[in-house]
Amino acid sequence: AIRDAALALLARAGDAVRGPLSGLRALVTSGPTHEPIDPVRYLANRSSGKQGMAIAAALRELGAGVTLVTGPTVEPAPAGVAVVRVETAREMLAAVETALPADLAIFAAAVADWRPAEARAGKIKKDGSAPAPLALTENPDILATVSALPAGRRPALVVGFAAETDDVAANAAAKRLRKRCDWIVANDVSAAGGGVMGGAENAVIVTDDAGTETWPRLSKAETARRLALRVADWFAARQAET
Amino acid sequence: AIRDAALALLARAGDAVRGPLSGLRALVTSGPTHEPIDPVRYLANRSSGKQGMAIAAALRELGAGVTLVTGPTVEPAPAGVAVVRVETAREMLAAVETALPADLAIFAAAVADWRPAEARAGKIKKDGSAPAPLALTENPDILATVSALPAGRRPALVVGFAAETDDVAANAAAKRLRKRCDWIVANDVSAAGGGVMGGAENAVIVTDDAGTETWPRLSKAETARRLALRVADWFAARQAET
Repeated sequence: AIRDAALALLARAGDAVRGPLSGLRALVTSGPTHEPIDPVRYLANRSSGKQGMAIAAALRELGAGVTLVTGPTVEPAPAGVAVVRVETAREMLAAVETALPADLAIFAAAVADWRPAEARAGKIKKDGSAPAPLALTENPDILATVSALPAGRRPALVVGFAAETDDVAANAAAKRLRKRCDWIVANDVSAAGGGVMGGAENAVIVTDDAGTETWPRLSKAETARRLALRVADWFAARQAET
Repeated sequence: AIRDAALALLARAGDAVRGPLSGLRALVTSGPTHEPIDPVRYLANRSSGKQGMAIAAALRELGAGVTLVTGPTVEPAPAGVAVVRVETAREMLAAVETALPADLAIFAAAVADWRPAEARAGKIKKDGSAPAPLALTENPDILATVSALPAGRRPALVVGFAAETDDVAANAAAKRLRKRCDWIVANDVSAAGGGVMGGAENAVIVTDDAGTETWPRLSKAETARRLALRVADWFAARQAET
């Protein structure tokens, strides 16, 4: 039902914008995921959702039909984009799989790597004794899962994000190979790196099979536009090859 | 410095509104706290901050000088209120202690009971092995700490909030005695109770030494106004006694 609604929205919006990405279907994730501990407590990654929302908007402006799967955020969704709201990593993976196939996928969400092993149905009471350690379990890896899909089902271009606090370029390059995605967009979220997370700007390093590009500090909207243009160039080059 | 700025703001705003709470100083907390695991991950309680913000606004409308100490929220702070923004429970306690003395204090924030025992300076890498359990430690109890202050330092009226998923009235009454506060405003955050957390409405039970009042489901602004009027009645009765 979600997929049908998204397709209907895309079909309606598809005629409105012409651009270098017209005719292509894009999937974007944004925001954090919230992993419940009990009905009132959760574990999360820091993320405002701004960068993913801006990427969805920028792809749309270039003509792509965009489905945005977003974790909890108060950011308004961009116009003309089909939005699916989720809370947890598992819900995000399910929504992503439902939204496929797509020509390109940009995973900008800050998905929690781990979730509490057990989400309690009732509020855990504070009983005065020392709190028990919180047992964790690994969440599904959405980027690696989609990157590993067979040709035809896998988007032609899969882009991951990385928030790093040290060795940003090296960690990003290693992550690209490990996840088998095509590009990694990495930002330095350490205090030394500007701690831009949640702010209005971003300073990223883009890694692909040709190497590494360091972009200047830009507004998140500018970073998104530059990324969307890079995507358009990539599809144009691919088109020229075939 | 925070206290001086708050006092200056209050002094400036103090003349603007006349009402039954004029001349009284109120302290309100709102929002969640975020307890860092590492630079990108945190543990939190669900809270939009809406109810606390609405209470600060309602007290201000009745003439009180209000200091609001709020955890991370995107809610706009009400006009004429001195706002101190914090992230963790420990920061919230420090800001509350700095804002005292006050005639009344309403602790509407959803403070995390526990925090990670150690906040790591660098992002914890996912290394493929099962994640280690997260060791937790107890946060300071702001409501109990302020309720236990000696006369003169303790606000005359201390109001706590409770989010409960079962036995709401009984848990609220027990919490009032345990924390030694004057009133508890409790809401049922279970799905059966409407799961109103984060929504626009609230349905609360107010417990004091005289017993329990069940309020109907009201907008958070209406709940706040009713609570502010109950506070004004309490101070009027106290005034009449002396």
